[in-house]
Amino acid sequence: MMQGEIITTGTELLTGRVGDFNARYAARRLHEAGLPVQRLTILGDHSPLFQDLLVEALTRSQFIIVTGGLGPTEDDITVAAAAQALNLRLFLDDALLARIRRCLGERRIPWEERYARLALIPEGAQVLDPGGMACGFALKHGDTRLFFLPGVPQEMRMLFDALVLPALVESAGGGERLAQRTLRLFGISEARLQQVVSQLPDFQQGGVTVGFYPNFPETHLTLTTRGRDRQTLEETLDRLTSSLAREVGDVLLGSDLVSLEGLVGRYLQKRGLTLAVAESCTGGLIGHRLTDVPGASDYFLGGVVSYSNDAKANLLRVPAAVLAQKGAVSPETARDMARGVKTLFNAAIGLAVTGIAGPSGGSLEKPVGTVYIALATPEGEEVWRYQFHGNRAEIKTLTAETALDRLRRELK
Amino acid sequence: MMQGEIITTGTELLTGRVGDFNARYAARRLHEAGLPVQRLTILGDHSPLFQDLLVEALTRSQFIIVTGGLGPTEDDITVAAAAQALNLRLFLDDALLARIRRCLGERRIPWEERYARLALIPEGAQVLDPGGMACGFALKHGDTRLFFLPGVPQEMRMLFDALVLPALVESAGGGERLAQRTLRLFGISEARLQQVVSQLPDFQQGGVTVGFYPNFPETHLTLTTRGRDRQTLEETLDRLTSSLAREVGDVLLGSDLVSLEGLVGRYLQKRGLTLAVAESCTGGLIGHRLTDVPGASDYFLGGVVSYSNDAKANLLRVPAAVLAQKGAVSPETARDMARGVKTLFNAAIGLAVTGIAGPSGGSLEKPVGTVYIALATPEGEEVWRYQFHGNRAEIKTLTAETALDRLRRELK
Repeated sequence: MMQGEIITTGTELLTGRVGDFNARYAARRLHEAGLPVQRLTILGDHSPLFQDLLVEALTRSQFIIVTGGLGPTEDDITVAAAAQALNLRLFLDDALLARIRRCLGERRIPWEERYARLALIPEGAQVLDPGGMACGFALKHGDTRLFFLPGVPQEMRMLFDALVLPALVESAGGGERLAQRTLRLFGISEARLQQVVSQLPDFQQGGVTVGFYPNFPETHLTLTTRGRDRQTLEETLDRLTSSLAREVGDVLLGSDLVSLEGLVGRYLQKRGLTLAVAESCTGGLIGHRLTDVPGASDYFLGGVVSYSNDAKANLLRVPAAVLAQKGAVSPETARDMARGVKTLFNAAIGLAVTGIAGPSGGSLEKPVGTVYIALATPEGEEVWRYQFHGNRAEIKTLTAETALDRLRRELK
Repeated sequence: MMQGEIITTGTELLTGRVGDFNARYAARRLHEAGLPVQRLTILGDHSPLFQDLLVEALTRSQFIIVTGGLGPTEDDITVAAAAQALNLRLFLDDALLARIRRCLGERRIPWEERYARLALIPEGAQVLDPGGMACGFALKHGDTRLFFLPGVPQEMRMLFDALVLPALVESAGGGERLAQRTLRLFGISEARLQQVVSQLPDFQQGGVTVGFYPNFPETHLTLTTRGRDRQTLEETLDRLTSSLAREVGDVLLGSDLVSLEGLVGRYLQKRGLTLAVAESCTGGLIGHRLTDVPGASDYFLGGVVSYSNDAKANLLRVPAAVLAQKGAVSPETARDMARGVKTLFNAAIGLAVTGIAGPSGGSLEKPVGTVYIALATPEGEEVWRYQFHGNRAEIKTLTAETALDRLRRELK
């Protein structure tokens, strides 16, 4: 299988001032295309290190993507360093020079001698010209294909998608394609999930790669398989998904990129139900997540952040006796909050949370992390108690996720 | 000068599914401390490649930071691979094992044999133990210092800041210490900030490094200085902070790690004022941020997420005529929401936002990103109109930040 690597140059990347989004972009696109990348390296604008790395990379990679350092300034060292590393002479490409002059003219940028550098490329290089101002170039060295791309993200991406990826997919050939699916789970630890997967016969067959990705508070699992026939690949992924679903049940949220709040929204919309939320310890996080989904106003009416007891009593009509005798963090209060917000907003469903996010406020009987979640639906009311662990932010996150998940399970 | 490099392991990083935030964080902190990094490398969970790279790195770097691969699963290969590369035996650290058992017990995670792997470290390694669950370890090999840190970002950062950076600064600086301050600004572009700083005489003196870091929606600026005397260093940082504050005024939120919502909380507490919020387009994000601050219940009474017009009318008492004639996104509605929520919660201050987060809902007169923010205080009422640009999430973020910032300016 072709193995590749990506080299990014730019001293600003070594200072942490900016992130290396180009390498990540290229890695993702290559991975999706079934062209694995074995290494990403970021170097400063320093010629000897770059030359050494390039020579090294030629011994182990069948394709090398280099981004950055193609500009007209002193610290743009890529072209000269690459030519030296590969023992190639530089020549001035007249067509490229003419085109650079033309592009500068169109942008009313006065010509300067240093722009001539942009037309210097190594002998044997093929200019990658998608028709815009930005160019890159490609080289072959033995069996290795090298691609040199600008560092400006839009230019890099445009060239990569238009000219680099198609060329690599074609030369990887064989006609094999790749199929991938991401499964999202909540309520199972990564360790437990690995154990489950290791005991499922379907997952032990060749040709399937499984990846585990913690994504607090969820765990994500990717399935990757390769072959010639798209339908067979999809069937394999369906079979694996069903097999896992049978084993883990409700903790499987679904596949691909639908968020939990997106799922909840879909179910609400499909069933023509409206929702209102009463939040205590989450302070508005559940409403915030619900409204991250475009079009949420179709089913989300709003909510009350009842941080104070007064708000719980006056707005949500939690009886003073309940608050006094059972406490603000109690199954009774949670249930009354859900009922109260459902009535207040005239919603089909009321969802409520009340708990102790910490760091203070805990007791022996109700330690930090104690959370009650309640649902009031047309069918009735339910309350669950949870004991979460973590800091304040983690307890808020877990509470919101669990509340949305309870709602999802109720609706699906 | 000491030169270092950072190695990140994790196959998920090579697929572009997640970004390598750890390396960037470490690179930035090292850069600010005057410890240059010459190379960042990302590898998959593949032992031979990692071993080769480690051996290579030892020949060229005086310090090496490795993150990732310290967990209990099969693909956590860092410890075994490092021991092999450095020709060291692994041994079971009994104290570490006992502490892992204790931590698991506290979290009610049942013991499994594979967790014993977490206590295997190479001979001669020093456990980096900041007192939490996560540990790393340090090694010396010839003149090179190696640090192995977990891949979970919070754990990595905590260990890095608490134990790695101070050790490196001390060994590089002959006993010199480092003082650093991060200034947080909102409402000034990075370009403008750079211009301001370049014209302040205090910042042109030797021994001070200034770094600019975009941190949407804020801009952060770090000041770094080194020396032997802690008090002198702090005085230098105070002088620079004052000098910048005089120049930029209200856009300086403050220094170090006090968030905007934390600042607002401090001011409210100091002045004995209570707050209630009415949120439309932010959906609960403002309340969520306010309640991220421990002790927020001292001043934050709660709020209403009035996503529907009914909620604005029935709960917040925005007159039907205002909603019908001026619209839900209008200065009048914003003002009435602020007034309404103040009354409803019997709070000293009501803060309200209403706007169009998009992607749909915009018009020629009120395009996506149109937002009204209103404050009702004991002194009176104010409304501001903003035109934000960005996607739905960005507009929500900018709205929440601007609303909290308006409140901060009102209170300080």
